[in-house]
Amino acid sequence: MSFLDHIRGCNAHDLSGFRPFLIDGVRVGWIRHKLAERLPGVDPGFVVTAKAVTLAPEIRDFEARSATLAHAAAYLVESGVIRGLRGEHYPVLPRWGAEPLARLDRAAVVPFGIDAYGLHVNGFVRMPGGGIELWVGRRARDREIAPGKLDNLVAGGQPIGLTLTENLLKEAREEADIAPDLAARAVPVGIVRYCLETPMGLKPDTMFLYDLELPEDFIPRNTDGEVEAFERWPLDRVAASVDGTGDWKFNCNLVVTDFLIRHGHLTPDTPDYLDIASSLSGWPDALTKAEIRP
Amino acid sequence: MSFLDHIRGCNAHDLSGFRPFLIDGVRVGWIRHKLAERLPGVDPGFVVTAKAVTLAPEIRDFEARSATLAHAAAYLVESGVIRGLRGEHYPVLPRWGAEPLARLDRAAVVPFGIDAYGLHVNGFVRMPGGGIELWVGRRARDREIAPGKLDNLVAGGQPIGLTLTENLLKEAREEADIAPDLAARAVPVGIVRYCLETPMGLKPDTMFLYDLELPEDFIPRNTDGEVEAFERWPLDRVAASVDGTGDWKFNCNLVVTDFLIRHGHLTPDTPDYLDIASSLSGWPDALTKAEIRP
Repeated sequence: MSFLDHIRGCNAHDLSGFRPFLIDGVRVGWIRHKLAERLPGVDPGFVVTAKAVTLAPEIRDFEARSATLAHAAAYLVESGVIRGLRGEHYPVLPRWGAEPLARLDRAAVVPFGIDAYGLHVNGFVRMPGGGIELWVGRRARDREIAPGKLDNLVAGGQPIGLTLTENLLKEAREEADIAPDLAARAVPVGIVRYCLETPMGLKPDTMFLYDLELPEDFIPRNTDGEVEAFERWPLDRVAASVDGTGDWKFNCNLVVTDFLIRHGHLTPDTPDYLDIASSLSGWPDALTKAEIRP
Repeated sequence: MSFLDHIRGCNAHDLSGFRPFLIDGVRVGWIRHKLAERLPGVDPGFVVTAKAVTLAPEIRDFEARSATLAHAAAYLVESGVIRGLRGEHYPVLPRWGAEPLARLDRAAVVPFGIDAYGLHVNGFVRMPGGGIELWVGRRARDREIAPGKLDNLVAGGQPIGLTLTENLLKEAREEADIAPDLAARAVPVGIVRYCLETPMGLKPDTMFLYDLELPEDFIPRNTDGEVEAFERWPLDRVAASVDGTGDWKFNCNLVVTDFLIRHGHLTPDTPDYLDIASSLSGWPDALTKAEIRP
């Protein structure tokens, strides 16, 4: 798979199979028609029309909304859509930076098509000769998602109740045993966005990207069992592993491609350079500008 | 004007005022309806329908197409749409990296809405204290476009017949007296795209961005009269001059905003961070996916 194949793969979806999920008139998710039609039977707080799913007017505050969503999450487990709850909650946001409208178990985020956020850290070393080497993790073989695939040095979904920086320091310690004073040197460098349809639902994902320059003698060590091994690769090997294999976890391909562009390893001479560079951080208009009238 | 205001300003356009210009079935530009309807009278090589402008089947090769376009460029001068020709030619490309289908005088590129390309170089210095300072140019007061406005250290449109790197070395010498061996250290770091409607036509522009880290004792010197003065600014001052003033040349605001994001000066806590980061490098779907049937 080429660089562009990975981007297209992460953006494969058909919105016609979904209807928007609105809270207080703002679209916060996308729900498959079949699931949408069952929701009023799960909790009368769901108001479902042919065009949208909303919440009943009496469901007004954070806790009431979260309780209604929790009933739906339990139903998703009972009906076998998801294997179980994770016990970790994501915020349901009207937009990034706003107060959460509700919380939802992480396992139910994709069936509800909630806009989710996460962070990915490119851990790299500037070599004495002038080149760059990137730390690459291999995910443990027992992970539910992408077992054995290549991953960024540190990455994690953004749960409710933590700032991005708090989450970064926590994940850096758990996933690679990076001390907080070193992890705090990570520089935010932009975003990558994609929207993937999966058997469970829609995954509109925004990844906040960080570059963390590490000392040459730093060795990461996984502490939470999620990573089998870390290796440091020159960028030629990194690029070849993205452009030509499916060895990386699906969304990490995009993070690494962005890194290769920002550090000049992919140049304007690269075939498809403009298509690659212009499709990493944006969403199709259909996602952002759809006129939604419940 | 905020960061986002500048991005929106550079993307203000209404395609309904234009019809696509196709060569060999590929859209290469956008022409105002009024101009489109006059073109067959200027040169019989133009075939104009209500939906598109194309070239007659007998106009088959680079030179024939260029001659037809040159007639139209001369008409634009005669009719007062543009002040005069520039004597510098841009390629008409079916896509970046492909062989040019034709050449067109730079002054006629916007009236034909041709996809144009250019390069912008962020010249910066890493200060001993750890911060970054950016070299800022002030455009000469006698320039036709954006006189007296702030500009990147080096920038230039991409003419036909030069590679990007050749153009970078040429512009670096002319605009800032940067020796080729120093300019060659510039690192390609991505793109910014925008599409602006102007009184003359449509300007769909792709800017290839470069970061050039300069020694602390380097002083740029303009050699072509296009720059009045250079100054080196800390990023706080740079950010304040974009977010809150109209001091920069319109498209340079976007280049500088991208620099501030990639170097972590704008962080995810910045209001509108996601809207900013997701709208610098892409084009609206309407531009790229429009179904065009002549």
